[in-house]
Amino acid sequence: MYWLGIDLGGTNIATGVVDENYNIIGRGKVKTNRIGRTPDDIADDMAKAVYMAIEDAGIDKSEIVAMGIGSPGSIVPETGTVAVANNLGFKNLPLCQMLKDRTGFDFYIENDANAAAYGELLAGAGRGKKNFVAITLGTGVGGGIIIDGKIFSGFNHAGGELGHTVIIQNGEQCACGRQGCWEAYASATALIRQTKFAMHKDPTSIMWEIAGSIENVNGLTAFDAMRKGDETAKKVVNQYIEYIAVGIVNMINIFQPEVLCIGGGISKEGDTLIKPIESFARLDRYSKNVAMQTEIKTAELGNDAGIIGAAFLCNLYK
Amino acid sequence: MYWLGIDLGGTNIATGVVDENYNIIGRGKVKTNRIGRTPDDIADDMAKAVYMAIEDAGIDKSEIVAMGIGSPGSIVPETGTVAVANNLGFKNLPLCQMLKDRTGFDFYIENDANAAAYGELLAGAGRGKKNFVAITLGTGVGGGIIIDGKIFSGFNHAGGELGHTVIIQNGEQCACGRQGCWEAYASATALIRQTKFAMHKDPTSIMWEIAGSIENVNGLTAFDAMRKGDETAKKVVNQYIEYIAVGIVNMINIFQPEVLCIGGGISKEGDTLIKPIESFARLDRYSKNVAMQTEIKTAELGNDAGIIGAAFLCNLYK
Repeated sequence: MYWLGIDLGGTNIATGVVDENYNIIGRGKVKTNRIGRTPDDIADDMAKAVYMAIEDAGIDKSEIVAMGIGSPGSIVPETGTVAVANNLGFKNLPLCQMLKDRTGFDFYIENDANAAAYGELLAGAGRGKKNFVAITLGTGVGGGIIIDGKIFSGFNHAGGELGHTVIIQNGEQCACGRQGCWEAYASATALIRQTKFAMHKDPTSIMWEIAGSIENVNGLTAFDAMRKGDETAKKVVNQYIEYIAVGIVNMINIFQPEVLCIGGGISKEGDTLIKPIESFARLDRYSKNVAMQTEIKTAELGNDAGIIGAAFLCNLYK
Repeated sequence: MYWLGIDLGGTNIATGVVDENYNIIGRGKVKTNRIGRTPDDIADDMAKAVYMAIEDAGIDKSEIVAMGIGSPGSIVPETGTVAVANNLGFKNLPLCQMLKDRTGFDFYIENDANAAAYGELLAGAGRGKKNFVAITLGTGVGGGIIIDGKIFSGFNHAGGELGHTVIIQNGEQCACGRQGCWEAYASATALIRQTKFAMHKDPTSIMWEIAGSIENVNGLTAFDAMRKGDETAKKVVNQYIEYIAVGIVNMINIFQPEVLCIGGGISKEGDTLIKPIESFARLDRYSKNVAMQTEIKTAELGNDAGIIGAAFLCNLYK
């Protein structure tokens, strides 16, 4: 028996056939090509990517139990629709039905961040746990919440916006309209802004050499320069980690999950990131005197989390 | 059939016999008298308060289905124990068993804030809802979270500390050890501090007249002076409400509950408090474009919420 997951992204439609041990045994990939294309065109390509993965896996489609979709935007899992996905121009789109029409399979759908959190729960950092929070530090700060083994997203499925909690009232402008959101300090986007700001104040920093030019600064620039002994870069990294930690401790005080995992490009820094966050958590969490404590880990599955989580969404409807 | 709840507080042990319509039909009350008394002494008084309520209700004890306790501190509901309640000198105390030994009844136990949230869910602001958040603005800022009709408190029951989420990094010192917690800005204690600070800066404010002296300032001083046209008081109230709103919007973005209720002494201000918070929420919540929105309400049951919630904890174990 196999399961199939679709990770619908702004750039790529990635699919995978997943076995009962959560191994991806066949993959498909099609460019999303958003510009000038209708939802039907995109659904056609999703179906194409489904068949690519089945062929790559070398299985018969009758061996597949269920299929699932992780989609950006605001999702209504009960009706299988995308309420809004601005990025893709979707509005009240019955995406599960559209895929069923094209493949004959029943489809389940979730927000992409939730699907990825579910994937990490099943096969990654949250394996064997029932209460789990996944944070992604990318363009924004995303959150996926698992309570009692199920995805939690509030009564209207618009919850779990952990990046849009203010940590500095009246602080930096956030893309969401508020000021001072965690995302405006702890995303990779924010780190790049912080790095550039520090470079402008210190023309002697080796960050200039590492990046080549100010336009080439990325989320690794400050980390790399720090490892070469650059004091300005060290300050940038320390401050950035403190911003991350403030939000992480907030989430621990709220959720007390068994595991809180941190994913996204920055999480590849591993212990450089996790160890100081653990120190902040030990010092600052409200539950200092409690025997059982939240474990803070890096995410394990990278981009595969979304495919694996989507593939097994059917389990949530048993 | 009846249920019986015990609200174990630092000052009073309050009990109530509750009918199937959530009416309290008999009450008991005993001073907690913490000083110099053992856990066994307190359990004796709790049993006494149980029998007072049964007598007051004029029922036979055989008509009672189950009993429950809302206790301060860190609770382990599964084992019926209080892990720690510093306030009462309890440590790893098998309080449910101790009450069973004294009364013959099976007891259920929860943290007092959680029991009160459950009471509001059953019979108050959250009636008929499944996803619900209760915030209490008192000495601190407390939180009770209901997800899918059940109390949520994390895997170690230490979660739901909504007041201990930082809204201003490196801000006011909080009693928990962190700086800038929501509680340090939005509790009644914080409001009193903010009121006194403003009075010292404005010797002409009528808050001096209303309070009589600086020691008599309470959570109502600024609200009362504002209603009499005092500009300084108005600024204090507006700033205080903004502090509350920042945290409320954070909680909406995280939980998207059907109802979020605000309790505690300050909540008696009603619409003076709720209307501006609603305005902030409309403007700031991440879910601006979502059809279904969280309703913000004041708590309805006051101190009875804890008794009613505790009485029906047995429902969570069916």
